[in-house]
Amino acid sequence: MGTSGNFSAVVTKTPLRLAITTSGVDKGLLTVRDIVEIDGHGTVVAGSGKPSAEASLHLAIARTRGAGAVLHSIWSTILSDGAADQGGLAIEGYEMLKGLVGVHTHDQREWLPILENTQDWAAAVPLVEATLAEWPDAHGFLIRRHGLYTWGRDLAEAKRHVEILEFLFDVMGRKRGMPWQP
Amino acid sequence: MGTSGNFSAVVTKTPLRLAITTSGVDKGLLTVRDIVEIDGHGTVVAGSGKPSAEASLHLAIARTRGAGAVLHSIWSTILSDGAADQGGLAIEGYEMLKGLVGVHTHDQREWLPILENTQDWAAAVPLVEATLAEWPDAHGFLIRRHGLYTWGRDLAEAKRHVEILEFLFDVMGRKRGMPWQP
Amino acid sequence: MGTSGNFSAVVTKTPLRLAITTSGVDKGLLTVRDIVEIDGHGTVVAGSGKPSAEASLHLAIARTRGAGAVLHSIWSTILSDGAADQGGLAIEGYEMLKGLVGVHTHDQREWLPILENTQDWAAAVPLVEATLAEWPDAHGFLIRRHGLYTWGRDLAEAKRHVEILEFLFDVMGRKRGMPWQP
Amino acid sequence: MGTSGNFSAVVTKTPLRLAITTSGVDKGLLTVRDIVEIDGHGTVVAGSGKPSAEASLHLAIARTRGAGAVLHSIWSTILSDGAADQGGLAIEGYEMLKGLVGVHTHDQREWLPILENTQDWAAAVPLVEATLAEWPDAHGFLIRRHGLYTWGRDLAEAKRHVEILEFLFDVMGRKRGMPWQP
Repeated sequence: MGTSGNFSAVVTKTPLRLAITTSGVDKGLLTVRDIVEIDGHGTVVAGSGKPSAEASLHLAIARTRGAGAVLHSIWSTILSDGAADQGGLAIEGYEMLKGLVGVHTHDQREWLPILENTQDWAAAVPLVEATLAEWPDAHGFLIRRHGLYTWGRDLAEAKRHVEILEFLFDVMGRKRGMPWQP
Repeated sequence: MGTSGNFSAVVTKTPLRLAITTSGVDKGLLTVRDIVEIDGHGTVVAGSGKPSAEASLHLAIARTRGAGAVLHSIWSTILSDGAADQGGLAIEGYEMLKGLVGVHTHDQREWLPILENTQDWAAAVPLVEATLAEWPDAHGFLIRRHGLYTWGRDLAEAKRHVEILEFLFDVMGRKRGMPWQP
Repeated sequence: MGTSGNFSAVVTKTPLRLAITTSGVDKGLLTVRDIVEIDGHGTVVAGSGKPSAEASLHLAIARTRGAGAVLHSIWSTILSDGAADQGGLAIEGYEMLKGLVGVHTHDQREWLPILENTQDWAAAVPLVEATLAEWPDAHGFLIRRHGLYTWGRDLAEAKRHVEILEFLFDVMGRKRGMPWQP
Repeated sequence: MGTSGNFSAVVTKTPLRLAITTSGVDKGLLTVRDIVEIDGHGTVVAGSGKPSAEASLHLAIARTRGAGAVLHSIWSTILSDGAADQGGLAIEGYEMLKGLVGVHTHDQREWLPILENTQDWAAAVPLVEATLAEWPDAHGFLIRRHGLYTWGRDLAEAKRHVEILEFLFDVMGRKRGMPWQP
């Protein structure tokens, strides 16, 4: 859709190996040559190219949660900004939440923490790990004016989480422009 | 579209048999194996899999109205919430209403009742049936923060009703964000 | 797009013959069998089926302007309603206006009259003709809560007018939800 | 998408030769016959047809920046109008900005100057050149109620800039309709 993002998948858990998109590639023109394999330190062990600047973020997620995907989308960019001063975005009471793994009722409060953006994700890893530890039930987090990070046991689950969260962001974003918000 | 929902169609009327999508299936990847046939008590009589948790809702509709479809969409999710305290959503004066079966003029007031969401639809069947009986001319109802239920004599009619109601939800949703609402 | 509408094209001018879509057809499934030829009184002279209830409107346009198309779209439905108490919708200063036939500068005020909807278009023909005569430079008109009527020398021109006016309705509709409107 | 615009590409730098779309062509039906080659004075040197009325604008860009593209889109039309009294549109703090050539951090303030629309671009060239000189880091400019002009070293870069700026216009446009704007 003309928007960029980064994708990764766990190749092996021990030792940790991650397939991840390289930096500066137009995602609309993505080929297998634009994916490299990195180890747990972010060093390229297969393929050539510079891994995404957000590789350390993907590694932090892979260690604790599995496959990761980050999406720059209209609504996640807007909501990551507008809800930033509350420290996160709450989504509750929607049937669609039941599509998130482990959620069995609409009567659920999903909390997506919001992190400030940075150009030095390696330095921000402790903060990311602390956030993931603080919200063990979270299915994603937002980076301010940047987008959504979500994940899953495998790519199919990560893709489903992207779709469900984007749907709910769209609902919440449009609703906020209305008199009966939130 | 990455959003989920449930679909059903009447196979036989006497005894009542319904083809219905199974629970927990990604609707974007739907195949014939993800559809089961149930009887009037919701028991699977053909195919394998767990019928949708909303099977009793579909049965209640099938008994009185015919084929059923439920759609989780952006605007129906928003409007089912915003109009909930009026008990329903009124749509009137739109030419597009004439696409609903039995409507022959735009000078029509369509009333879509709104029901609270639940995880126990079997227990909610009496309420659903009472609502359907109270509004014999309704072409659908909304479930709060969940979506639209609509139906038709056959799947083509149900599909047309989905499209028309979604169009009108979109019109009403966008209009409410404006100074001249509603 | 799941929305309905009516289309017509002039077959011969003398005597007036119009090809027009029939009534009650799902426009997404339109085939050549769903188009009939009518004379200047709206009588079917070729094909079978009931011509659109808006046939007399198409005839009124064909007599003075050429090919006709009517489109039920989200924004034309909203704007036809919101601007109805001014009697019409003004669009001015947009570069895109130059795509309308006969417009050579963005410094143009396009006026789209708004008519009340009716189920008896035959009776409304004098009003439609008076409106067309009053606004000889108009490229279309709106019917309240119904949609846009536009036309062209041929279908290509009518299609271009549909696209340009829809674009401008979208711009104006979104802008009205904003602080710096109109 | 049914919207019009103009595209150009530098053929040779010395002497300056530009391939550019011709005037009055439906861009949805664009073929190679609708493109002419012009010299630095806007005179057609290959192909036939009248070059776009905005040819002198494209030449001004080509002299200093490379390939050019102009896009009439919903959001650029809205924002070019709404932000006109500030003289330009500021976009800052978005990760997506890093897709613009030469931008290496989200902590960037992109300034898009806004010019008034005109039908005499030849006369406006000095103003355009002065604007380009005043904002050497700008990746585009807006023309009021007209759209976005952007460019790149080559067409791929120009296309990427179109996509990124449109994404950010969409984010900013939707956000302005909200309580927490901007």
